[in-house]
Amino acid sequence: MTAEPDRAVLGLDVGGTTTKALLVDVAGRVLVEDVRPTPAGPDPVGHLASELDRLRAVATGRGLTVVGAGVVTPGLIEESTGTVHYASNLGWRDLPLRSALQDRVAVPVTTGHDVRAAGLAERLLGAARGVDDVLLLTLGTGIAAALVSGGSEVTGGTGAAGEVGHAPVRPGGERCTCGQRGCLEVYASGAGVARRYAARTGVTRSAAEVVARLGADDDATAVWADATSALADALVTATLLLDPSVVVLGGGLARAGSALVDPVAEGLAAGLTWRAAPPVRLTPLGPAAGCLGAAAMAMAHAGLAGLLADWPAPQPRPSSSVVVTS
Amino acid sequence: MTAEPDRAVLGLDVGGTTTKALLVDVAGRVLVEDVRPTPAGPDPVGHLASELDRLRAVATGRGLTVVGAGVVTPGLIEESTGTVHYASNLGWRDLPLRSALQDRVAVPVTTGHDVRAAGLAERLLGAARGVDDVLLLTLGTGIAAALVSGGSEVTGGTGAAGEVGHAPVRPGGERCTCGQRGCLEVYASGAGVARRYAARTGVTRSAAEVVARLGADDDATAVWADATSALADALVTATLLLDPSVVVLGGGLARAGSALVDPVAEGLAAGLTWRAAPPVRLTPLGPAAGCLGAAAMAMAHAGLAGLLADWPAPQPRPSSSVVVTS
Repeated sequence: MTAEPDRAVLGLDVGGTTTKALLVDVAGRVLVEDVRPTPAGPDPVGHLASELDRLRAVATGRGLTVVGAGVVTPGLIEESTGTVHYASNLGWRDLPLRSALQDRVAVPVTTGHDVRAAGLAERLLGAARGVDDVLLLTLGTGIAAALVSGGSEVTGGTGAAGEVGHAPVRPGGERCTCGQRGCLEVYASGAGVARRYAARTGVTRSAAEVVARLGADDDATAVWADATSALADALVTATLLLDPSVVVLGGGLARAGSALVDPVAEGLAAGLTWRAAPPVRLTPLGPAAGCLGAAAMAMAHAGLAGLLADWPAPQPRPSSSVVVTS
Repeated sequence: MTAEPDRAVLGLDVGGTTTKALLVDVAGRVLVEDVRPTPAGPDPVGHLASELDRLRAVATGRGLTVVGAGVVTPGLIEESTGTVHYASNLGWRDLPLRSALQDRVAVPVTTGHDVRAAGLAERLLGAARGVDDVLLLTLGTGIAAALVSGGSEVTGGTGAAGEVGHAPVRPGGERCTCGQRGCLEVYASGAGVARRYAARTGVTRSAAEVVARLGADDDATAVWADATSALADALVTATLLLDPSVVVLGGGLARAGSALVDPVAEGLAAGLTWRAAPPVRLTPLGPAAGCLGAAAMAMAHAGLAGLLADWPAPQPRPSSSVVVTS
């Protein structure tokens, strides 16, 4: 490996609200991190292609050749073809994302699922380095999981594995936007925490603001206790089914830190009688985990997977240091 | 393959109550099926070795050479070493089953987990033939699952995957023998159905007897509705997590037939809003599934896995035709 690599890859994580992009050289140094609103409108693929072209121009300006791009999205994705069958937060149905992007972008494009990409990043660089049986729970607006069993990703028969946000953790409980009652997301997603706090108090606060009020605001404390209890119950079931060696908590709610991980780990241990609980860890990768995974997918697609073992762990940064260029 | 194969394998399924044994020729014909009480006492390995020796003698009497034995048990099993770390129904702790049996038996011995062996049999010969993403739920005295993802068994970081019987499907619900509340087994295992019927009525009946009274006995109907509802909720969560292409119901309670599979399939479909439910099928293998899987493991261990594709599906038989030789 050269000390000053002249090649790089792009990672793009298309979320319901923002699209994150990374330019990473093949030695794993993050050169550009970019967050902007996910484009709405009739030509989402055109916007994503433009973003990839823009980052390629930045790379060229630095004397780097881009050898591939990884693009990850939420929803039901057919991994073999790169078609997004359904992504409710993006309003996409049966979008042939990979082929449509490949038609417009001059570098090889690979596509995948955002949470599974985050799971890949955790195994490469994060809280599950070198672990073969992993459960990553991404706690954002919604909740989804990435599962790794014996070193292989669990994708499921239709590519829909990991959609644990709608698991009925509180049968007959509060109504979910999906039409069911008592889903995990109702209690433990960012949207769920904010909605339940507003329903109790009449005051609109984000989940982060609810967390900031813990201990000083009984409603915040109660809503958060319901969230961590529901998460612990979901993890009891997932641990009994899958027996992960480590549980990683990621997504926006992971910024709650010990206010999240301590009660969840305690509830998980309390719910398991005759077996030890796996350790529960916070992601060290922050909101860039999915995007880093996308970049790693691009490396593998370019035949450079062997270099990933030498990628350095990203340095923790306050989220305010992220360059928002929108 | 010869029309009259002169080689055979043994399969042994050591359960909490009975031990089932099969002598199967390498063409997949079941020559002897034997069910007897699981030996109690200080030397369980000696009893199992005697059973294997006895079946070998039967094989020899028929001009067959036994080329291997597969032995499967419940509990926490380290697949790589064949040590049973904990099997509550057998009273075993840290028993080096494979090496101890191998010391006493003159044919190669392989060992494994009973429910995962049943899952193997379902994929080879049963309700999941050729399917790569499978969830088998075995409903007996307790409840456990075998999971197959992308054609590979999910065993978990400590070999404990599939212990879904203690998933908290009814948080804060009835007390389980494990010390928790609301576990799936409390409502939906054979023992749970019998116990809950007795608690309501003061009358002791087996789960099979409760099923036989459906429609004519309101208590039986109510207890069974709770059982199938709890199973459906557990399958909703497992489907969301794992996305199996087929769900197979096995174990003793599968004898309930459509009284089991119809409400469970209906409840599973009703609990999934934005995705189709996988088909729910009854095992066609009956209680011999684990034992057939053990025999198939012995085939693979003997380098004869290639012949398994030609094994015929076992003919359905009434359970009364099983030869109980104890």
